[in-house]
Formats: sequence, structure tokens, C-alpha cells
Amino acid sequence: MSCISETMKELVKNSSGIRAMFEEGKRLARLRGAENVYDFSLGNPSAPPHEDVKAAVTRILNEESPTLVHGYMNNSGFEDTREKIAQSVNAEFGQDYGADNIVMTCGAAGALNVTLKAIINPGDEVIVFSPFFVEYAYYVSNFNGVTVESKTDESTFLPDPEDLESKITSRTKAVILNSPNNPTGAVYDEKILKRIAGVLDAKQKEFGRPIFALSDEPYRKIAYDGVKPPFIPSIYRNCFVAYSYSKALSLPGERIGYIIAPSDMDSFDEITCALNVANRVLGYVNAPSLFQRVAALCRDTAIDISVYEKNLSFLYSALTDIGYECVKPKGAFYLFPKAPGGDDLKFCALAKEFMLLLVPGTAFHTPGYFRLAYCVSYETCVNSIDAFRKAFDRAVS
Amino acid sequence: MSCISETMKELVKNSSGIRAMFEEGKRLARLRGAENVYDFSLGNPSAPPHEDVKAAVTRILNEESPTLVHGYMNNSGFEDTREKIAQSVNAEFGQDYGADNIVMTCGAAGALNVTLKAIINPGDEVIVFSPFFVEYAYYVSNFNGVTVESKTDESTFLPDPEDLESKITSRTKAVILNSPNNPTGAVYDEKILKRIAGVLDAKQKEFGRPIFALSDEPYRKIAYDGVKPPFIPSIYRNCFVAYSYSKALSLPGERIGYIIAPSDMDSFDEITCALNVANRVLGYVNAPSLFQRVAALCRDTAIDISVYEKNLSFLYSALTDIGYECVKPKGAFYLFPKAPGGDDLKFCALAKEFMLLLVPGTAFHTPGYFRLAYCVSYETCVNSIDAFRKAFDRAVS
Repeated sequence: MSCISETMKELVKNSSGIRAMFEEGKRLARLRGAENVYDFSLGNPSAPPHEDVKAAVTRILNEESPTLVHGYMNNSGFEDTREKIAQSVNAEFGQDYGADNIVMTCGAAGALNVTLKAIINPGDEVIVFSPFFVEYAYYVSNFNGVTVESKTDESTFLPDPEDLESKITSRTKAVILNSPNNPTGAVYDEKILKRIAGVLDAKQKEFGRPIFALSDEPYRKIAYDGVKPPFIPSIYRNCFVAYSYSKALSLPGERIGYIIAPSDMDSFDEITCALNVANRVLGYVNAPSLFQRVAALCRDTAIDISVYEKNLSFLYSALTDIGYECVKPKGAFYLFPKAPGGDDLKFCALAKEFMLLLVPGTAFHTPGYFRLAYCVSYETCVNSIDAFRKAFDRAVS
Repeated sequence: MSCISETMKELVKNSSGIRAMFEEGKRLARLRGAENVYDFSLGNPSAPPHEDVKAAVTRILNEESPTLVHGYMNNSGFEDTREKIAQSVNAEFGQDYGADNIVMTCGAAGALNVTLKAIINPGDEVIVFSPFFVEYAYYVSNFNGVTVESKTDESTFLPDPEDLESKITSRTKAVILNSPNNPTGAVYDEKILKRIAGVLDAKQKEFGRPIFALSDEPYRKIAYDGVKPPFIPSIYRNCFVAYSYSKALSLPGERIGYIIAPSDMDSFDEITCALNVANRVLGYVNAPSLFQRVAALCRDTAIDISVYEKNLSFLYSALTDIGYECVKPKGAFYLFPKAPGGDDLKFCALAKEFMLLLVPGTAFHTPGYFRLAYCVSYETCVNSIDAFRKAFDRAVS
């Protein structure tokens, strides 16, 4: 008999597919040599961690009390760390935050789970924009919430405010925004954000209850061509920010990030207390302590994203030359082209024959596309083009 | 209007009480001087982190690739780390585990949440032994499980197998064991564990479904007088172990621990896959990466517990001399004496007048007692005795 829970059965089944692909990639690498397999399947940053990180760790271990550095603190994190991060956000985005507006978390994934735990009642609806990072649906389901999909404009991958409006009901508690976006690389501009804010504001009034925006921003520092993602709490009052240092400092394994809860959001005092308690009862207890202190020291630091920009520029031009159709991304490190031939599952299977590992759009609830994570070496990008050409030709023939 | 979820409202209310006490402690420290406040309320280790930890961090940063050290890995953790920890467990407890039996987690709290997510269906019952670490009930409720309390023998604080037997129903999915115990300091011996295993085995047969033991062991390395907590998977087959380095290395802020899932448990393959996925979808993603590697290097290291033993020996003798009734603990760093006068809430309020910060037994679902965390300086223990005497005299007068 099976011993695992019913919800896990479904999750394990889904994840077995991804795992099978992962294993297949490793098998191919053994068979053909790693240099002959073009693995664009994972969002694992290829840029090395920022060199300031090592210096920060060394300084902390030499200068601070180890009992403090590795010890428990308030579940929301070290107060001085939160204060420093608040100051950094204030300097960048013209806010007036203090330690009370920041909760340190185990990455952005922790930030989203803590925030959802704090606000979601069973049956509450959370809107996401397709294509979307599929873990959002699992996070919402952790709290017995219901994920509702709203579409994006396929020429820009920006949310469609009219569709959003039609999806909001009296059970809508939150809308997850993700810009720069995984998997499309879209960056929401001020104009679209103001339209979204307008819709949410009107619906808050109509239903007489708050609708929170949850802005998931692990890619905030990764935008190209001078694009700067707008700071959403400046545009919409009831907005949480979930930030992570995973990509900005290339530290995804360390699980360090934070939540911003602005003071002028509804029920602010109650919410910050709930976030603090949620961090504890979800078993995170607190964000990893040494890396809280590293984050404080490296708060204004970010890796050099020119390596990603070079890959993007090369791949976008090479792939569109071949005939791939793709909205040009403005941030993050993903391309989300249309699957040649139209069937993403079929195309990704075909691509694998040419040693290309890609993720079908179906995994992001958007069939007909595929995701290409270009956080790989430039060499891999260059060497992959012949395979992309062959896969394209075969798919459309 | 209130914006937080219904479950959080209750949690926030409860936690406000503890927070109020915490704030009161800080207020008293400001008012009377920290040295005149005897804070026995928190299980925050007073022993400094083991010195090997700093050496391990330095070695890892100097010798290993930073992209590996701070990067993503399999959600279960680095394979070489898991293999090394398995070998360490094998050497200590005569097992035959490999990397597949170990899942690295964000501490023991993460380990329990991941395990419960993997196995609990809504309405499933999880048995805990009172008095118990109250977070267990929150963890069970995270997955819509039902916490069922079973009593312990008040002369030993060991579980009562007959009471346990009477509490098991067809919905019982798991029993949480915690030895050395928070808050009582009891260590379950082999005899009681065999009786518990006998009850669970018989009930598994009766109901035709597995009943898992979840052995929560953050205090495994903290036992006194030559007592060695038995390794429970050797006694009961369907047993998970949740371990943490928080106390063994004095690193509670770093959130590093692991789950052991023995190969001979029911549905082993399905379970390890579910644990891996649960780590991801709960938003932990993976245990903090640098400290996974520290744990591998320091796997056989533990702090010197003689500081705790000295406090225990002094306090137990001094308090019982005054007239406090207390079962002598064999491990962890807590005393759980009867509240003089019988009313624990009243006694803890009274104790505060004498600058003693204690936690009422009610917080562990066991009124009539109080918890004293002696992971403080020896000086604090010695200086507190006069206050303990005065509080006792007042309570019984």
C-alpha cells in the first residue's frame, strides 16, 4: 500500500517527469560527454557568487560574536540586519522603511510561503498570470487556497488588466506578480502596473476587503538595456515584496531573502505579527543567521549581469535568424519562444535528440512554448546553435 | 477589518502572550540591569558554537568552488554530504545507511514539517506525549492533521504505553517521540521504547496501515551521567529521525539538520521521493548549502556539555533543597518542576516579581508545572537561588 499523502502523490508524479528528464540529461552527458549536451533546463545561476560574499563571511567570523552570528534571534530576523536592508531599499526606491517593514526569510520561496500562511484562508483565491512559475500553485495549495489563472498578452507577456478584472471574485485575496518574469523574461512597466493597481483598487472597494499584491522579485537586479523594474509598493499600497539574494549575489543554495510589508498596508501591525509567527510555525524558525549578516553587508552589491546579457543578445539573434518566434526579454535569464511545429512536448522530446535540454511551456501552464534558461556558459550558447537549427528544421518539416 | 487568516489569528493571540513576557523581560533588564534578571525562559544555547565550525567554514571557502558551495543542488541536499552523514550515523549506531537514507533539512523543525507534509492527509491523527513542545501541534495543523495527546508517567515523564494504545485509532498516522525531551529532560530508555514499539506494531497489524514514529532528536547529543539515548529505528522499523545541529554544535540560527528514512520502512522509495518534493514545495527548496558542507565536516563533533551538566547539578540540588518537587532530568537543558502552590500561571507571574522568567507548564499543555531552561551562565543559576527561595515561600504561604 502507499503511505504518502494524497496531495504528495500528485506532486511526486509530476516531479517524476522532471526528474526523469534530469536523469536523462545526466545519462546523455555520460554517453556523449558533458560538452556535447546543451542543458538549458535549469535556472541555476552560472555567474559565480559575488566576491564580496567571501570577504563578508570572513569579516563576520573574525569580528562578530559567534554566539550571536549562529544563534537564534527574533523570528523576523536580526534587527540591525533588517534596519540596514530597509535603509538600502529606502535609498534605492525613495521609501521610508525601518526594521519593522522587513522580515528576513529563507529566500523568496520562504517569503511567499510565509506571506500566504499569514493571509490565506482555505478557499481564498490567489491569481497568477500565465505562463507562471509552477511552484506558485503548490505554495497556494499549502494553505488550501485556490490558484486562479489570468492570461497575459502574447505579444508582450504583460498581464491583461481586463482579463484580471474578470477573474477577481469576492474570494480573491491576493495576486502574484513576478517581474522580471520566469519563464518569459518580461519586465512589467509602470504603465501596466498602474492599470493593474487601478483594477485591484476598484475591486477592493467593490468587495469591501483588501486584495494584496505579492510581488515576487528574485530577478529584480537582472534587467537589461537600462530597464529598471518599478518598485510596486509605490504604485499599489497593499503590496508585499518577496526578495531573494539567490540571483543578485548568485547564492541560491543559501536560502536568504526577505519580505517587505509597507506600513500603510491594511492591518499592518497584525500582519507583521502574523509574518513573524508564520516564519516560526512553518518550521523555518528564522532565515539562516550567518547569511542574514552577509546580506546586511552585501545589501548594495550585485553580480555583473553582462554575462547573461551577452548570452541573451547572442541567442535571441541566432534563434530568430533560424526562424524561432520569441518575445525579446527585458530581464531574468530565460527565453520563452514558440515551439516550432506548435506542440511543446513533442518539440522538447525532439530537441533532446539533438542534445538540447529545454522545458516545455506546459510546465508553466502555457502549451505551445518552451523555456530556455540561458544562465549557462557563453560557449554552451554558441555550440548549441547547430542543434537548434536541426531541431527547428525537423519540427517544421 | 482584520486581514490575516483565521488560523493565524489564534496563533498570533497565543504568541502575543509569549512576546509580552519577552518584552517584559527586556523591560525588566533595562529597569533593574540585565544581571539582576534571571531569564530561564528560552532554549537558546549558552554554550558558544564549536570552534571547529569556524575552521570548517574557512576551509570550505578556501578549498571548494563557490559556485558549488552556495549553489542549488538536489532538493534532498548535496549527495556527498548525505553520504558522509550516513557513514557517521552508521559508525555510531551500527546501521547500513547511504545517501538515499538522508534528507538535509532546515533544522529539526524543517525535518518534521517535511516529513508530515509527505505522509499526512487531512484528518489524520498524530499522537504527542504531554508535556510536549507546543510547536508540534502547529506543525500537524499546517497539514490539516489532528493532534492527539497521550499522557506520560508523572514520576518519570516517560510515555504510558497503555494510554498510547487507547489513543490509537484507524486515523492514527504518526506518533512524535522526543528524547531527550523538551520540556522535561526525560530520556526514553530501551525498555520503554520496546513497549511503545510493541503497541505500534500491534496496532499497525490491527488497522492494516503503517503508523510512523517521528523521532525528534535535536537534543540527542545532550545526555548526562553516561546515559545514551537509544537509536529508535533499531527498535521500531517505521521510524523517521529528525535531527538538528542546533544544540550539538550550538548553531540554532543556521537551520541545519536532516531526516533519516530507513530503507526497510514501508513505501521507502515513494517516501524518499515525497520528502525530496516536500522540501521543495514547502519553500525550503534545500537546507542552507554552506552549512550542509559544514555539517559534513563537523559530523562527529559536539560541544562540551559539561557547562549544562554543571548548571543542572547545581540547580537540581538547590531547588529541591528549597522544596521544589522535580523529576531529575537525564538530558536536554530543561527542568520541569511542579509549580509551588499548584497554579503554574500564578506562580510564573509571582516569580517575575522576583526577576525570574519561567514558562508555565500550560504552554506545554501540562498545567501545574513550569519549565526552566538552564542553558544560561552558571553565574545566573547561582545568583537566582535567592529569588527562587522567595518565590517558593510566597507561593506556599
